[in-house]
Amino acid sequence: MSATSMTAEERLEKMGIHLPDPPTPFGAYVPAVRTGNLLFLSGMLATVGHAPRIVGVLGKNLDVKAGREAAHMAALNGLALIRKELGSLDRVRRVVRLGISVAATAEFTEHAKVADAASELFRDVLGEETVSTRLVTGVASLPFGSAAALEVIVEVAG
Amino acid sequence: MSATSMTAEERLEKMGIHLPDPPTPFGAYVPAVRTGNLLFLSGMLATVGHAPRIVGVLGKNLDVKAGREAAHMAALNGLALIRKELGSLDRVRRVVRLGISVAATAEFTEHAKVADAASELFRDVLGEETVSTRLVTGVASLPFGSAAALEVIVEVAG
Amino acid sequence: MSATSMTAEERLEKMGIHLPDPPTPFGAYVPAVRTGNLLFLSGMLATVGHAPRIVGVLGKNLDVKAGREAAHMAALNGLALIRKELGSLDRVRRVVRLGISVAATAEFTEHAKVADAASELFRDVLGEETVSTRLVTGVASLPFGSAAALEVIVEVAG
Repeated sequence: MSATSMTAEERLEKMGIHLPDPPTPFGAYVPAVRTGNLLFLSGMLATVGHAPRIVGVLGKNLDVKAGREAAHMAALNGLALIRKELGSLDRVRRVVRLGISVAATAEFTEHAKVADAASELFRDVLGEETVSTRLVTGVASLPFGSAAALEVIVEVAG
Repeated sequence: MSATSMTAEERLEKMGIHLPDPPTPFGAYVPAVRTGNLLFLSGMLATVGHAPRIVGVLGKNLDVKAGREAAHMAALNGLALIRKELGSLDRVRRVVRLGISVAATAEFTEHAKVADAASELFRDVLGEETVSTRLVTGVASLPFGSAAALEVIVEVAG
Repeated sequence: MSATSMTAEERLEKMGIHLPDPPTPFGAYVPAVRTGNLLFLSGMLATVGHAPRIVGVLGKNLDVKAGREAAHMAALNGLALIRKELGSLDRVRRVVRLGISVAATAEFTEHAKVADAASELFRDVLGEETVSTRLVTGVASLPFGSAAALEVIVEVAG
């Protein structure tokens, strides 16, 4: 069975990825809101549960590799939350938007390489036909010192 | 009458909150756009009218308390604008997204506490059943030096 | 024929603007996604193709004039992409959101003047009746050192 004929859940299993428990909110908000066939997620950080794991600023005390790990971790949290909200990743028709904010210095220029770690995970799991638009910024800092934060809007099938 | 059986406008009155005049645009844009049943607001700042009121950077010359006041002020402007656009706050079915940007240093980590001042005001006025997703970032600076800026997308009832 | 009775494509021609080839993605994403009658664009930078053209930080090594050129360049890329996706700019019913991020210092305060260069181009080409909401932030840095990045959500006619 080729990767393209598999479902998202089948691809995830074949890749040997075990999704974490999705993070519960850090404040007075909810993890996700559905309006029509769009599912908006709250910002996902480089955390395991509520514990920040990849903390720092790109170009200062973190390199591109660490930044990619942070974006990947935030993306895993995002996939976990999508599955929890929809019951299955197979219900994603399209990822409308991935926004990736990375904590970065004024001199840092490799934001796209960092953001690709999130984009590639989403593409590899959810499939080429779901691939999103993308917005990337280098911010001063993120909650709890997280090196990356992810914005996600998904179009739900059916 | 319990808080949960009251309407948003009734809760606002009971809380003794008088909404300000919503800010007019600072440039070539409009305060809000409705598409389908979604209402997008322009970014709300910590201003009274066009006058910046809480100016500075968290972790540098402003503390969490001042940041919360900035987020609260931006949220009041947001509620005022929603009412003006919809005629009544009671027409909000759901807050799809609250995005909160705070001007912050690279070392600041308490963005969530600051953002909660906006989230809590929206929840307390609009009701628990409207509570939003949330995106929080610490940015280098905001227009006119505002310490906080608010992004809002609302789902309109009926 | 007055400006208001012209179509967007007619206004563009009268203004003597030749749109560039829209930029192809810098990573694992697509230029645009349509969901319902909303078209989301990927972030547009101050680039010609993949070449960054206006690089730096407002308040540090770039002034407001350079920032406006960056915002204008990103907006030209946005218009070019909208035309490519929809076939014609005349199919834009409304610009729901323009988000403008500018690379800026903590002390910079003139973000709105910079952002207006993008807002004004969109208004002058697409027409007063399409004018958008707006979100503006000053970030630490942007991909490839771009001085500005543009977020666009458009409502498509018909």
